[in-house]
Amino acid sequence: MDHTILVGTLDLVLDLFGTFMFALSGAAAGVRHRLDLFGVLVLAFCAGTSGGILRDLLIGAVPPTAITDWRYLTAAVLAGLGTFWYPGIARIRSAVPLLDSVGLAVFAVDGAKKALDFGLGPVAATVLGMLSAIGGGLVRDILVSEVPVLFRSEIYAVAALAGASVVVLGRALSLPAGPTAVAGALLCLGLRLTAIRRGWKLPIAGGMEETP
Amino acid sequence: MDHTILVGTLDLVLDLFGTFMFALSGAAAGVRHRLDLFGVLVLAFCAGTSGGILRDLLIGAVPPTAITDWRYLTAAVLAGLGTFWYPGIARIRSAVPLLDSVGLAVFAVDGAKKALDFGLGPVAATVLGMLSAIGGGLVRDILVSEVPVLFRSEIYAVAALAGASVVVLGRALSLPAGPTAVAGALLCLGLRLTAIRRGWKLPIAGGMEETP
Amino acid sequence: MDHTILVGTLDLVLDLFGTFMFALSGAAAGVRHRLDLFGVLVLAFCAGTSGGILRDLLIGAVPPTAITDWRYLTAAVLAGLGTFWYPGIARIRSAVPLLDSVGLAVFAVDGAKKALDFGLGPVAATVLGMLSAIGGGLVRDILVSEVPVLFRSEIYAVAALAGASVVVLGRALSLPAGPTAVAGALLCLGLRLTAIRRGWKLPIAGGMEETP
Repeated sequence: MDHTILVGTLDLVLDLFGTFMFALSGAAAGVRHRLDLFGVLVLAFCAGTSGGILRDLLIGAVPPTAITDWRYLTAAVLAGLGTFWYPGIARIRSAVPLLDSVGLAVFAVDGAKKALDFGLGPVAATVLGMLSAIGGGLVRDILVSEVPVLFRSEIYAVAALAGASVVVLGRALSLPAGPTAVAGALLCLGLRLTAIRRGWKLPIAGGMEETP
Repeated sequence: MDHTILVGTLDLVLDLFGTFMFALSGAAAGVRHRLDLFGVLVLAFCAGTSGGILRDLLIGAVPPTAITDWRYLTAAVLAGLGTFWYPGIARIRSAVPLLDSVGLAVFAVDGAKKALDFGLGPVAATVLGMLSAIGGGLVRDILVSEVPVLFRSEIYAVAALAGASVVVLGRALSLPAGPTAVAGALLCLGLRLTAIRRGWKLPIAGGMEETP
Repeated sequence: MDHTILVGTLDLVLDLFGTFMFALSGAAAGVRHRLDLFGVLVLAFCAGTSGGILRDLLIGAVPPTAITDWRYLTAAVLAGLGTFWYPGIARIRSAVPLLDSVGLAVFAVDGAKKALDFGLGPVAATVLGMLSAIGGGLVRDILVSEVPVLFRSEIYAVAALAGASVVVLGRALSLPAGPTAVAGALLCLGLRLTAIRRGWKLPIAGGMEETP
């Protein structure tokens, strides 16, 4: 019993931590586009929670947790206010990629787990795990009218996909949930950090002459 | 009984009126971007109803009223056709800010009320009231690939937030629903109109040298 | 019995075919914007399935079929990979407009039918049939930060609207479902192909001097 509560608490803390880190990226985008305080807060909230909200809408888990649990809003608003007053804060994300990547890993693993819990099949749960992790960045970039950066950056969504698939595979093989989740998160984290360090990118279609 | 019907009717009339005013803003954006007739109608419908549709999706009230009740579509199409043939019509919104602001106030108050009715907590209901009021403008601007203007304009979302929070507070204190709704709407309306008159804007993060 | 299974299979085949053709358009947009392999696949999936997913969210049919049935993902990924390695493949859409228009017709007719099956009224079902057909193109263009091309192209959404309304009308008159669906699809197909051949476009609001 104690153990379950402990794991649940750790999970929540990591989830709120991920929300906070992603919200920093949204707030930074808002400041960069010279939005007002409210715009910065909206971008922070959307970047931090859209992935989970999209997942919850698609699996029918409404109202989404990120809406009903005020702690997600609080985490996003704190990140937004912090970035608004000290824009330098957001630089922590590029300076310490580990922090941001932990968010990616936690969202991917938790997203896949929740989709499985709602009865989705293995392929759908893997895709939804990935969507939980990348949805925030997608919505953030759409709101500031940019082509999502993750469509062109270092291995990012693929790392989320890998983490989610470990969780799905573990469930299919009836492995214990806790260690599988940790393994999935570590795989995602390792892939992403290595990709950043080595500049790994996915290929772009060649032979196209017209540049944007 | 009579009284309830009267209030319900007034509420519907105000809601359709708000939809019409917001649809004008969508149609005007469509005309400005030289969209064809269909594009103008879609933008009118999205600007008029997206806030309510997003709220309904998030609280699980599907299918959303704006889809099932043909009167919303009709209000939006009338606004779209009118603006298409007489683009000057849309100028009524800037000429008489009261009309547009009534829409904002009604959407915020009704949105918060509906979220409470669906069992959401006070923080979530306030946020969803605001989303009901600003969602149409967000989706309109996304569709024409612009950064949402409300992220940079006079106090707008904050007025909606204030109106929604009055409704939520009133419910928490078990105050009668009717007067609370009126109070919330008047607060939202007053804030917005004063902000327009005096040019009140939210601050923008300073110290950023790079301009968009 | 045999007959029903046959019709069901034909319907699924056409639906997957439509998904594949629409996914080609998404993948082509991704290649044109120089997205990486992952971005191309996401755009392919979104262009092929967003219409159906939006419809399913709005009628409460969650999780959406395009998420739970792995064949839709497979069709989209095949279109994405094909376009990524041989970008010329996507040209088949403009070279043979029939292929693309079949997708439009199938999505419009199936979308209206599904909305009716979920108890929506005639106006809502017609609109949702159209949304099923145009949603993929809308989301694709939003993701690459462009004003949706269908707001300015040859009769496109109107053809989908016409096809969907035939299905709704047929249901209202209790006509047999199969022939009605075929009639709706043929009307949509005919309208779209004629519009492409003759360059039929919807009007644009005149008298506006400011160009985008």
